[in-house]
Amino acid sequence: MSPAADNASFVFARALLHELAAGGVEHVCVCPGSRSAPLAVAASQTAGLRVWTHVDERSAAFFALGLARASRRPAAIVCTSGTAAANFAPAVAESFFGRVPLVVLTADRPPEARDFGAGQTVFQPGIFGAHLRWFHEAPVPEPDALLLREIRVLAARAVAMAAGRPAGPVHLNLPFRPPLHPEPVHAQALERIAEADPLAWTGRDGAFARFHPARLEPDPAAVDALAAAIRTSERGAVVAGPLDAEPALADALCRLARAAGWPVLADGLSGLRSGDLVKDAPLIAHHDALLRDAPLAEALLPDTVLRLGDTPTSKATRQWLAAAPDTWLVDPDGAWQDPEFAGGEVLRADPALLVSALLPRLEDALPRRDGTWLTRWRRAERAARDAVTACIDAEPGLYEPRSVRILAELAPEGCLLFASSSMPVRDVDGFLPVAAKRIRVVANRGANGIDGIPSSALGAAATAPPCAILLSGDLALLHDLGGLLAANRHEVALAIVVFANDGGGIFSYLPIARYGERVGFEESFRVPHGTRVEDVARLFELDHARAGDAAGLREALAAALRSRRTTLVEVPVDRDASVAHHRRVWRAAAEAARAEVLDRCPA
Amino acid sequence: MSPAADNASFVFARALLHELAAGGVEHVCVCPGSRSAPLAVAASQTAGLRVWTHVDERSAAFFALGLARASRRPAAIVCTSGTAAANFAPAVAESFFGRVPLVVLTADRPPEARDFGAGQTVFQPGIFGAHLRWFHEAPVPEPDALLLREIRVLAARAVAMAAGRPAGPVHLNLPFRPPLHPEPVHAQALERIAEADPLAWTGRDGAFARFHPARLEPDPAAVDALAAAIRTSERGAVVAGPLDAEPALADALCRLARAAGWPVLADGLSGLRSGDLVKDAPLIAHHDALLRDAPLAEALLPDTVLRLGDTPTSKATRQWLAAAPDTWLVDPDGAWQDPEFAGGEVLRADPALLVSALLPRLEDALPRRDGTWLTRWRRAERAARDAVTACIDAEPGLYEPRSVRILAELAPEGCLLFASSSMPVRDVDGFLPVAAKRIRVVANRGANGIDGIPSSALGAAATAPPCAILLSGDLALLHDLGGLLAANRHEVALAIVVFANDGGGIFSYLPIARYGERVGFEESFRVPHGTRVEDVARLFELDHARAGDAAGLREALAAALRSRRTTLVEVPVDRDASVAHHRRVWRAAAEAARAEVLDRCPA
Repeated sequence: MSPAADNASFVFARALLHELAAGGVEHVCVCPGSRSAPLAVAASQTAGLRVWTHVDERSAAFFALGLARASRRPAAIVCTSGTAAANFAPAVAESFFGRVPLVVLTADRPPEARDFGAGQTVFQPGIFGAHLRWFHEAPVPEPDALLLREIRVLAARAVAMAAGRPAGPVHLNLPFRPPLHPEPVHAQALERIAEADPLAWTGRDGAFARFHPARLEPDPAAVDALAAAIRTSERGAVVAGPLDAEPALADALCRLARAAGWPVLADGLSGLRSGDLVKDAPLIAHHDALLRDAPLAEALLPDTVLRLGDTPTSKATRQWLAAAPDTWLVDPDGAWQDPEFAGGEVLRADPALLVSALLPRLEDALPRRDGTWLTRWRRAERAARDAVTACIDAEPGLYEPRSVRILAELAPEGCLLFASSSMPVRDVDGFLPVAAKRIRVVANRGANGIDGIPSSALGAAATAPPCAILLSGDLALLHDLGGLLAANRHEVALAIVVFANDGGGIFSYLPIARYGERVGFEESFRVPHGTRVEDVARLFELDHARAGDAAGLREALAAALRSRRTTLVEVPVDRDASVAHHRRVWRAAAEAARAEVLDRCPA
Repeated sequence: MSPAADNASFVFARALLHELAAGGVEHVCVCPGSRSAPLAVAASQTAGLRVWTHVDERSAAFFALGLARASRRPAAIVCTSGTAAANFAPAVAESFFGRVPLVVLTADRPPEARDFGAGQTVFQPGIFGAHLRWFHEAPVPEPDALLLREIRVLAARAVAMAAGRPAGPVHLNLPFRPPLHPEPVHAQALERIAEADPLAWTGRDGAFARFHPARLEPDPAAVDALAAAIRTSERGAVVAGPLDAEPALADALCRLARAAGWPVLADGLSGLRSGDLVKDAPLIAHHDALLRDAPLAEALLPDTVLRLGDTPTSKATRQWLAAAPDTWLVDPDGAWQDPEFAGGEVLRADPALLVSALLPRLEDALPRRDGTWLTRWRRAERAARDAVTACIDAEPGLYEPRSVRILAELAPEGCLLFASSSMPVRDVDGFLPVAAKRIRVVANRGANGIDGIPSSALGAAATAPPCAILLSGDLALLHDLGGLLAANRHEVALAIVVFANDGGGIFSYLPIARYGERVGFEESFRVPHGTRVEDVARLFELDHARAGDAAGLREALAAALRSRRTTLVEVPVDRDASVAHHRRVWRAAAEAARAEVLDRCPA
């Protein structure tokens, strides 16, 4: 390979993009700009990179976040100088807290042009605040072999830091001097590099530099202590929070729980609600409904908890966790995801390696257990599940719980379900049943924003899972309206189910709702907007269907899932009726479980 | 006044908002959220505050920026915790570089909840990077008189710092513990404050604290030196860059130029192109077309330049400036707006005070000048203006230059014209004529982003000027699509003229365009999007008209200006034809001016 010797900016940009691809980056989201031209052109010319262009940098960054989250590989984003970079900030923050690998490439004016009144020039170093794994200011391109080598190593290091532990966003700020088009100005000087340092010029076969991360083996003493705690505690529980576990890990966790005789409280985002291997696992999906009820939470209180994944979605579960006397929190990054300050043991290790180390210590050595504890959980789960089903089946209207059940029923094997923040992720956590059919549930769970939802879901869908569904509220749809542009521009197939309640539904669940107009509830919290989903569909040339009841949703969703386009399936929801329905469902679940658990096993 | 003693969060929030209003804040943009409930409720209950609710924090912040820019007073923005705050970042950067006063209030979790895995929690302190005039973390509200006093003083200080020199964004991060609704939990402790420290409790009459800024008087020695430079330099020029000068300052600058016998190169954003007082002033509006021409730029090269305002919009003018041997740069903030590194004298002073100090030193003492220099400029300006007019009148198609002239013609006295970044601001700078009718031209000139344009313009229009026009490209419209929601929600009247060329028009002017598909020009730079302006109008229930020629634009714009609603006036533009037309116009202007200037005044 002998790249054209046009000018240093284009040579450096090509080297950077080439090394990103060699390091495993496959997707690059590019926003238009002049300062970023070397990067945009290099991205479009680099073998192995797929380029996704976007108008709005905020949407582009969330699209890349979705790509990276779904593919579990770093994605890159490119923007020009100025406020363009600031528009990346929301997705960068989500990437940081969600531990999603993102390589952020911001073109910039060279240092001499900053802070002297040049146009489209802001302070880009530091623009993402504390939300970065790594930052580096790249050198201004010039015909210099050492700097060209730096660019190649920078790319490798950026990918390593983004995909490292913890994964997250890295920011390379890339200054360019004119010309910003491939005019040959440094050709001779560049050709001298090609002769004098061919390795700098063409790179190596494959990556120029490659990083080998450490294996995060658990500390053997901690494994012994944890194994001892499991052996001595009959009333234990595995709590799998948002973890997006791959099948092998999900399987291992189920085997661990079975060996321990403990239930697994499987968060909607844990990756443990569905899949082949979990059929006989002691999985609890309805823990939110169960633990909202104080007598049940008390009756089901564990002595020992083994936590994996992020903070559970269910507030009831979080509070119940804090009451456990003995807590083990396992995290590969040593993240202290403990907002209730449960304290206890915090163990940094790869969860899969930990389970591998634990199982041999348990399977032969575990004392025989009478099964009361696990039976109690299984009965509670079954009672809650059946009561929820009965309650939503008896309801003539179509609300979120039944919609989630219908989604789970119609989604094909391997489907990706993106749950918007605010209510949808809670409804998925609350009502997505355990099933053998594999559905991968993802969400922007890092910072739980309602920003960038359509873009994130479109990016996730763009990794071409067998099918993809977004469950969203109308406010989240509106927040990232322009993000829908990517659906047709990039031919993404996504079934978007929109609960249309003309505003922010979550506030109706909060105490502030009781104060009504004394606190400006409608205008300041609900923020009714009056936009019609069908007009959104028309603007972006998306398919649209409205589903007023369960049969309608089944029909519309089935059509959307068959389609190779993006469809907006609108589910009109009356927010007050929906709140009342949720409360009936929770009450029914708790009553059914209480009858099973409290009567038979008095505290 | 005895505010309700419910809980400390609500008492503190009410005190804060009360003091902001007392300090001169009139507008608060509020986005929905739970953590921010005390602020949202307090804003809605505070006399003297007008609340504007928005779905999208990014749009909200730009709307506030528009309000603040147009009203020349600090506006406040409120959001909840998490990535919500990061969405403010683009407008905060623009506010910083545009020196627009903005008080940013971000609700946050209390310190103990941060970085331990709580939901919707990011690192808010530092989230705006270096783009702040001031940051302060407010105390967690509790029943404590000293802390309540701090809140009152914080509000005053925030307003003072935002409106100070330089003006810009301040960030108050405001932690709240539950309850986040006005439940009485601290009532007794709060009532004790009311008794023990009534001043803390109720505040003072008017503001609790008030800041008195210094007058930025010019250094007398520097005034003498500048006066001497003006007296000795016949070939001088006043260059009024983006300044948005109020009429009194515009008048003073014109008087200064007249006294000096110098032309005033009036940027489209200077505020000096229109108004009663400038009729006989030596105003040059077509300097961009003149100075694009190398022989003209040389013939018109000054010995001495007095610069005010930000870096001129015209690149030709910026480069011409750098060649002047003697440069005086006046800025009230001592901002070194000198990207070409002209160097010279930099004078920090209030421009109006400087002119007041200069005039007496000039009016009696100035040597008689023969007027050749000024006459040359006047002839060049007239020739350019007439040639531009002839060229656009001869053009059957409707392009941006003629559209700007039609806008200037139809805009009523006192109209506000918001020029989008990228091409519209350049077209306004290039083609807005000098006129007695006052049109106030504003733009996001701080960082020149195309983000937040509709929101910024709607915010500016919401200050109720006699009328308001936004001149935008379709890409800028699409970038902040959701911002259009504010038009009807808040009943804002704005005539939006959209040059619809299906993508980024500016790139066709750049050398990269010559490389075509070798650099992926269409897909990576132009980014055609295919959305229709009429569908945008339908979604947001805006009026819509399409103008294919001058008569059509006149008719549509006149109707839009009569309307009390927001109208999208779409002007379809073929980008290549538009580039060719611009080049014809510039050539015609230069040729006409050369015939006037070079032939008669050989260098």
